Amino acid sequence: MTTTEHNDRLTQVGKGTPGGEMMRRYWHPIAPTAKLDENPVQPVRILGEDLVLYRDRSGSLGLIGRHCSHRLVDMVFGIPEERGLRCPYHGWCYDETGQCIETPLESPNSKLKDRVNIGGYPVKEMGGLVWGYLGPLPAPILPPWDVLVQPNSLRQIGQTVIPCNWLQCQENASDPVHSVYLHGHFFKYILERDGLIEERASDPTTHRAWTSISGVKGFDHVISKRDEHGVQKAMVYTVERGAEKYQERWHSYMIFPNIARVGGAGIRFEMQFRVPIDDTHTYHVVYDIYTAPEGIEINPPASVPYYDIPIEDENGKPIIDYILAQDMVAWWSQGPIVDRSSENLAGTDIAVIDFRKMLDEQIAVVEKGGDPMNVYRDRSAIGDVIECTPRINSSTYQGPTWGSSRAALHKGYWRDDADRHGPLLEDVLDLMRRVDERPPAPTQ
Amino acid sequence: MTTTEHNDRLTQVGKGTPGGEMMRRYWHPIAPTAKLDENPVQPVRILGEDLVLYRDRSGSLGLIGRHCSHRLVDMVFGIPEERGLRCPYHGWCYDETGQCIETPLESPNSKLKDRVNIGGYPVKEMGGLVWGYLGPLPAPILPPWDVLVQPNSLRQIGQTVIPCNWLQCQENASDPVHSVYLHGHFFKYILERDGLIEERASDPTTHRAWTSISGVKGFDHVISKRDEHGVQKAMVYTVERGAEKYQERWHSYMIFPNIARVGGAGIRFEMQFRVPIDDTHTYHVVYDIYTAPEGIEINPPASVPYYDIPIEDENGKPIIDYILAQDMVAWWSQGPIVDRSSENLAGTDIAVIDFRKMLDEQIAVVEKGGDPMNVYRDRSAIGDVIECTPRINSSTYQGPTWGSSRAALHKGYWRDDADRHGPLLEDVLDLMRRVDERPPAPTQ
Amino acid sequence: MTTTEHNDRLTQVGKGTPGGEMMRRYWHPIAPTAKLDENPVQPVRILGEDLVLYRDRSGSLGLIGRHCSHRLVDMVFGIPEERGLRCPYHGWCYDETGQCIETPLESPNSKLKDRVNIGGYPVKEMGGLVWGYLGPLPAPILPPWDVLVQPNSLRQIGQTVIPCNWLQCQENASDPVHSVYLHGHFFKYILERDGLIEERASDPTTHRAWTSISGVKGFDHVISKRDEHGVQKAMVYTVERGAEKYQERWHSYMIFPNIARVGGAGIRFEMQFRVPIDDTHTYHVVYDIYTAPEGIEINPPASVPYYDIPIEDENGKPIIDYILAQDMVAWWSQGPIVDRSSENLAGTDIAVIDFRKMLDEQIAVVEKGGDPMNVYRDRSAIGDVIECTPRINSSTYQGPTWGSSRAALHKGYWRDDADRHGPLLEDVLDLMRRVDERPPAPTQ
Repeated sequence: MTTTEHNDRLTQVGKGTPGGEMMRRYWHPIAPTAKLDENPVQPVRILGEDLVLYRDRSGSLGLIGRHCSHRLVDMVFGIPEERGLRCPYHGWCYDETGQCIETPLESPNSKLKDRVNIGGYPVKEMGGLVWGYLGPLPAPILPPWDVLVQPNSLRQIGQTVIPCNWLQCQENASDPVHSVYLHGHFFKYILERDGLIEERASDPTTHRAWTSISGVKGFDHVISKRDEHGVQKAMVYTVERGAEKYQERWHSYMIFPNIARVGGAGIRFEMQFRVPIDDTHTYHVVYDIYTAPEGIEINPPASVPYYDIPIEDENGKPIIDYILAQDMVAWWSQGPIVDRSSENLAGTDIAVIDFRKMLDEQIAVVEKGGDPMNVYRDRSAIGDVIECTPRINSSTYQGPTWGSSRAALHKGYWRDDADRHGPLLEDVLDLMRRVDERPPAPTQ
Repeated sequence: MTTTEHNDRLTQVGKGTPGGEMMRRYWHPIAPTAKLDENPVQPVRILGEDLVLYRDRSGSLGLIGRHCSHRLVDMVFGIPEERGLRCPYHGWCYDETGQCIETPLESPNSKLKDRVNIGGYPVKEMGGLVWGYLGPLPAPILPPWDVLVQPNSLRQIGQTVIPCNWLQCQENASDPVHSVYLHGHFFKYILERDGLIEERASDPTTHRAWTSISGVKGFDHVISKRDEHGVQKAMVYTVERGAEKYQERWHSYMIFPNIARVGGAGIRFEMQFRVPIDDTHTYHVVYDIYTAPEGIEINPPASVPYYDIPIEDENGKPIIDYILAQDMVAWWSQGPIVDRSSENLAGTDIAVIDFRKMLDEQIAVVEKGGDPMNVYRDRSAIGDVIECTPRINSSTYQGPTWGSSRAALHKGYWRDDADRHGPLLEDVLDLMRRVDERPPAPTQ
Repeated sequence: MTTTEHNDRLTQVGKGTPGGEMMRRYWHPIAPTAKLDENPVQPVRILGEDLVLYRDRSGSLGLIGRHCSHRLVDMVFGIPEERGLRCPYHGWCYDETGQCIETPLESPNSKLKDRVNIGGYPVKEMGGLVWGYLGPLPAPILPPWDVLVQPNSLRQIGQTVIPCNWLQCQENASDPVHSVYLHGHFFKYILERDGLIEERASDPTTHRAWTSISGVKGFDHVISKRDEHGVQKAMVYTVERGAEKYQERWHSYMIFPNIARVGGAGIRFEMQFRVPIDDTHTYHVVYDIYTAPEGIEINPPASVPYYDIPIEDENGKPIIDYILAQDMVAWWSQGPIVDRSSENLAGTDIAVIDFRKMLDEQIAVVEKGGDPMNVYRDRSAIGDVIECTPRINSSTYQGPTWGSSRAALHKGYWRDDADRHGPLLEDVLDLMRRVDERPPAPTQ
């Protein structure tokens, strides 16, 4: 059983806490790059620290302390300069290390600026996201996860602030069996209750809500296995329990510490990043790509668009009629930090338990001064892309029979997940239709 | 004088507090049944406890713990089953005692469910309200107060969450003299200030706002008397003080501990229930019936409709131009828990003081292990209905001269109380008109 | 350096704190008189005390305790009587000293009222504002600052609640150099960023945003000087630093403890009052007059109108495209109470430091039982008006060349300050046009 102390160790993200120090060994996405096009200065709260992200007029990014050292005005009102960010109050200018580089109203002989530094952290762009690193220097390599660098793809970024600790999101993804109820029976119940089921069922193919409901029959146990990036896990079906044959249904892939490779089929691949804002809030990023097979032209927008994934409707009522919304409800409805000392873990929680063990071990690795898993310092060892399960490969397109409803958004399944709120929905549906309508490969 | 410690004793409602334990000896209304028609699972907070109320597919009600025992997801997202409520996350199902009765994804041999119980309380329906009982078992009889079971009546339920302790509501009703100012001078002042008085005064009969203002003349003192259900009290007018004759004007009836029988005249009768949500919030239920005399047909809706009684307008400004609104202002404007150690009680507070004494005594009764007043365990002693003062009797209809403005809503007085917000207003007015227009009883 | 204890001393305003006792030696504006026309009873929170301001039917003002002494109902729902304010609950009536003068439902022989007093403070009207005094009696003279009593003027009152300590407002005004950046570079940056600069620049005369940007060139140092009312300060420009000639640019005048005489030119003069609501909130009053020169007729409204100066737009985004808005951002973006122990004061902060010294000294004066500066008890010493720098004098109208953009609102500069939100904007612009178009004075 998890004690209160152990729960703190797993969930706290502040500077100096065991979990917070482990989390500080990783690059985390902190904003879509496109947000800087709207306003080049953005407030960022991450791992309990209040910071300002900016892009200066030369295009360089900075992630520095929130308040000017002079009279403590909020630098979120700062003016981006050719180099650095200038305080609006008296013009003190800071570079990306937080070093004050100008105090324009002071005497030319003043040495004041030399002793003023408000702190700065490394920051980079990849895949339309801005990434920050809050740990000890030198910073490791920003990992080129496949979805971030995959060419010839439409991509869009969904973001939400979830009012709970990050680990609740990650433990949900660590648990393959929740889909049977949360995305099966519960989904069906909500659609029935809210009078939406006929519209959703109008598609001739079998609908997710129904297929998943069949998920209990023949289920025997959960298996999980660790690999170099994290934990994979599956539901195992057996003939003894009533399945037609032995089957392992593999579920989303947990990339340590806070990434999930969710779904993935046909041309659609997704990563979810669960970035701790503080102990009780999570910046949740859903990163989707839709990869065009060879021979299909696409025209992605110049910068990767982002959208806000809602958790409540305009009346403050939780939205629960699509997959991610159901997951989000499971996360925050456990409370700001779920009291793991009050849980009753069951046999099917084995992958959740395995993930917690990995978390414990990696926190210990950091305590001993080591690099935890998925921290890379040798470019030659990882190359230009880190491929994940399930693999992206445009040639894996499987023809008219899709592996998953998520690969068939154009048949109406877009209503079933966050994609429905995305700005690229029409482009994605068009791409999927074109992929589907390709002439068969010549047989001669 | 009341000390701070004594004030705590009178006002606290949490489990284990003297007042909270006394309150746990009673059934309390927790929601209109009609809310379950909208959504069969409802969050309930009562006596400081967070619970979930549900109606399963067989029609049975349950009032159980808020979080699933497994991973602590909020059961307010639960799925009602043929029997019990199922957690949306992994399908654990609970019956109305809070006992886990199914863990569908666990091994068929698992005994886990047998040791899982999230707590449940008795719950019943009466009069269009759902009632809960949070005290020691066996639960007493749910009292059939007359308004709840009176046949041949229109009924509607007004509800409000008041941001203060329940006792402030009850002490207001315990005090007959407040009407002179709060519903007299103050009412008139508000109508004048807000330019509403001409519209209100357009009715030819004398208006409440004016009649009450005459209430000081001849007033001498307050009397109160205890009876089997609570406290009745009156303002006494004497010739010595300028009244035309000795008169006792009886005011609303305090039914211990938290019910008021308010107003009541002609065919309209009302009870107000002041249910503690916690120490500083009260779920306030205004229950009105309009009883058709013999020979008049009515057609009540299948389920008793409810409505929200507003305390603020859309700009956040308190609404104060009707009777109940004025009472509600008096309640919450004393603060979350009024500091009774700072009061200056006066001669006219005698019935308030009597009610506090009764409260003290009944708390002591519970501390000694006894049943406090109005707790019934013997059906034969109370019968099918508990009648209250003033008595409901369709034959008491008094003809064209009404005993109270509340009995003459159809003459425009509906603007003066919460009825004006009720969904049945038109039906009530129509009923009153038909009652009024009845031909005189044949004299031969 | 300021310690945390010293910071508390400078910023705390509660009764019994050193700063709070000093602040209690002054009259403070608490509401526009015009608010009492809308509703003659208003809640007031000042110096951490909750009070009720009322105007009774005889026209007298009172500023008394918030809760009736009887059962503690909020007197903000009180009924103004011919004399005093009556509790809506049971009719207890209080005079302007807080003395209970009537308990109408008690026995005629009751002496209860004689021992009931809820406290009252002196209150007066001047210049369309209601002023309160919360200190020891006798109260000093309410100072007739020139703008308050200047005849033949349009006047309007802008009010805002700022979520920070009052001293942050005052220190901003104590600092002349902030204008170069906050109202210069930052203003220009905001206009450019938000696509507003062309509209603002459409006026042929040079625009404030640009002129101020030139403020760094030649600037050498800040000077400040104390006088009888407070602190004046200037930016000094020298030939050595690149100015064309030696120049002192005088900035707004700090009137101790919490008034700023801001801007002022042509016919427009302004005072800002920073009234502590409590330690972390400030009631900010911008008081503007527009004085008609001899020979120009104006028709001011019967009571001085007021308006709310917004700090956020309807989406909760800070408004920053005018002078006062920029100041307000500087104030509250330092946090509820800026931690002065973390500052890095610079050479240009000399006037801020001087103002803090004055604050320290005057707090000490009060601790020793003396009257601090700007507290007057001898009418003959101050006369009917206290004139301030810059002096108001209708004959100072300087013809077509204006001393400041604020004197040329009718040329489009109204967009640049809070005046743009004022109800008298059209009247002010019309007055300025008429002043400008006056025929030249006859030369014979």
